Amino acid sequence: MSVVKHTEYEEADETVKGVYEDIMEVRKSDTVNNFWKVLAVDPELLKTTWQETKTVMASGKIDSLVKEMIYIAVSVTNSCNYCINSHIASARAKGMNDQMLSELMAVTGLANKNNSLANGLQVDVDASLRDGGLSS
Amino acid sequence: MSVVKHTEYEEADETVKGVYEDIMEVRKSDTVNNFWKVLAVDPELLKTTWQETKTVMASGKIDSLVKEMIYIAVSVTNSCNYCINSHIASARAKGMNDQMLSELMAVTGLANKNNSLANGLQVDVDASLRDGGLSS
Amino acid sequence: MSVVKHTEYEEADETVKGVYEDIMEVRKSDTVNNFWKVLAVDPELLKTTWQETKTVMASGKIDSLVKEMIYIAVSVTNSCNYCINSHIASARAKGMNDQMLSELMAVTGLANKNNSLANGLQVDVDASLRDGGLSS
Amino acid sequence: MSVVKHTEYEEADETVKGVYEDIMEVRKSDTVNNFWKVLAVDPELLKTTWQETKTVMASGKIDSLVKEMIYIAVSVTNSCNYCINSHIASARAKGMNDQMLSELMAVTGLANKNNSLANGLQVDVDASLRDGGLSS
Amino acid sequence: MSVVKHTEYEEADETVKGVYEDIMEVRKSDTVNNFWKVLAVDPELLKTTWQETKTVMASGKIDSLVKEMIYIAVSVTNSCNYCINSHIASARAKGMNDQMLSELMAVTGLANKNNSLANGLQVDVDASLRDGGLSS
Amino acid sequence: MSVVKHTEYEEADETVKGVYEDIMEVRKSDTVNNFWKVLAVDPELLKTTWQETKTVMASGKIDSLVKEMIYIAVSVTNSCNYCINSHIASARAKGMNDQMLSELMAVTGLANKNNSLANGLQVDVDASLRDGGLSS
Repeated sequence: MSVVKHTEYEEADETVKGVYEDIMEVRKSDTVNNFWKVLAVDPELLKTTWQETKTVMASGKIDSLVKEMIYIAVSVTNSCNYCINSHIASARAKGMNDQMLSELMAVTGLANKNNSLANGLQVDVDASLRDGGLSS
Repeated sequence: MSVVKHTEYEEADETVKGVYEDIMEVRKSDTVNNFWKVLAVDPELLKTTWQETKTVMASGKIDSLVKEMIYIAVSVTNSCNYCINSHIASARAKGMNDQMLSELMAVTGLANKNNSLANGLQVDVDASLRDGGLSS
Repeated sequence: MSVVKHTEYEEADETVKGVYEDIMEVRKSDTVNNFWKVLAVDPELLKTTWQETKTVMASGKIDSLVKEMIYIAVSVTNSCNYCINSHIASARAKGMNDQMLSELMAVTGLANKNNSLANGLQVDVDASLRDGGLSS
Repeated sequence: MSVVKHTEYEEADETVKGVYEDIMEVRKSDTVNNFWKVLAVDPELLKTTWQETKTVMASGKIDSLVKEMIYIAVSVTNSCNYCINSHIASARAKGMNDQMLSELMAVTGLANKNNSLANGLQVDVDASLRDGGLSS
Repeated sequence: MSVVKHTEYEEADETVKGVYEDIMEVRKSDTVNNFWKVLAVDPELLKTTWQETKTVMASGKIDSLVKEMIYIAVSVTNSCNYCINSHIASARAKGMNDQMLSELMAVTGLANKNNSLANGLQVDVDASLRDGGLSS
Repeated sequence: MSVVKHTEYEEADETVKGVYEDIMEVRKSDTVNNFWKVLAVDPELLKTTWQETKTVMASGKIDSLVKEMIYIAVSVTNSCNYCINSHIASARAKGMNDQMLSELMAVTGLANKNNSLANGLQVDVDASLRDGGLSS
């Protein structure tokens, strides 16, 4: 069980109610996930976290489904079970099928492996790559 | 400096030479990055790592530029400086501009933040999300 | 279930009993948490871990409640569910309320986000900050 | 070198200039650190990151020096060299001396050790701790 | 529950069946663990992951029990509950007793602690250690 | 540069001198590494860290070279450059050659990959593995 109690819509203050309504509208859902009900312990934290999540995860120069996959890769690397489940569900709702999920996992797994090879062998960054290739 | 010595093409055995040639062909480059020169301390490890990297990072159901961005997100989360630099360079070569890089970082940063909020508050996975939304 | 069996007080050897008694006295409790019952598989590991925990977590130049919050921030970043739950309980017993917990999470979340931005963009340490500001 | 170029005050647009001025005023400094000069590649990301950092790190229910120490503990756990150096410098400017730094490191080190013991031995959360002690 | 469905032997295609049979033969078991049943969502990923696991974990210059302990140490550091449980079971089957497990945990815990001390205090690598002692 | 100044033997107090002498004796060296010179900012932290390191890393049920390899695997996973370099140097001094180092990296890389596959696909622990195989 979460370490603070959930705030349900009925008992919420005006700030929290406003955020919940916006979440349900944007998500086209009539419920709010536990993540938000827990954050509501601090209405200001709820509001800013939702605002940032809504803005950052929307399609921009990068498509929103791609953003979900990036988010999942980070959550996997950090072992965040809640985030893995909730963002795989979001990605599926946006069109990710099992084949794409499998490729996402293969890339995430490979990156985790190669990261440890590069760190473990203390590979020096090539001069041509030193600033992410900016100057070359 | 790396913890094993680099193997240059001239001094490499046949297995290593073959891998280097394939890398240069696939990458359309006439040099090989330090990562591979270091892995060549073990020709078998070099060969399987290159084979997997070539296969997994190629376009499939997910586009290869998207795969580079997923790879970068993992490398950032793991603090792998070599991988961050080399894969930002790859992504740039495939068309990632500064605006896309900035969105990639915003998503990666948000995921790292939200992961710690969900873990820290021990949020229970909603029944509707429990298997990544598979059953709902 | 834990990967080694719990050692209960009744079946414990003298070393383990002594540690359990000290834990109960310091914690003003008549039970011992699972963490210690599991470590008791190796009485020496139990003894040194308890000794270090008791010493390091006591108030010194940094207050013991602040130490609990630092400990929680690390546990959140490492996804250690046991440690998150047990140290939030300890911090609450020492006076942390929901508002403080919320601020602790906001700082922990922000640090995790900004860490990924600084690592991801490979920001160079400013000359004035290079040794944690020691020389400036 | 960072993977995007620094934006200096002179070449910055109005949004960036406004943020830089606020940073210098709040920090009582006449320069801006590299972190912000790099984020300025995306004025909106710079603005929201600074706004959140300023708000979250200010004294609230938790004192701002304590917040710096929490931030350092996370940065250490994530191996973010930039963040470790810059926030140790900030904490020193707010009164952290070597003895406090040493205690901060001892707590951070202990938490990292105990996290791995609890995870490694798969310790079950005690019923009395299950929601961070909320219900007990 | 896992985020993709398990593939049981009866419903598997030829590639998957072949891998399952090899797993059962190598493991001298008449069942296949969930890890493989889940990977079977992508027969190619299953096949390459099993092939690599079988090859890398076999005794070579390093004994297979030692490899299991190294694997466990990584899994503990990454908080991978599945991997901790399954590889402790494998290590036990190969002869790891509780005393060895306890020493493994003590080393893993110490490394996690000392890593944070070295990172946190930003210790410079000694000239004599700079390439893992290669040149000295 | 490290965030606290190094304490050289000549300027050290009696506690620190005693530890330095023990380190040099155990390590059969006439110098002390930077890690210890930095920890000496707090003689008590230096003393307990050295004591624990000496005890835990000594051969017991697990051989000291194996312990070095376990330590390296953790340090790689945590991206601790200091620890990677210093413990590869120690392991080499105890007999680890390039082939063993290569196998160590292959296992560490595989574990990091498989950890992310198991976490990412949220694989349920098999009943037979649930307590590290303790009950089966």
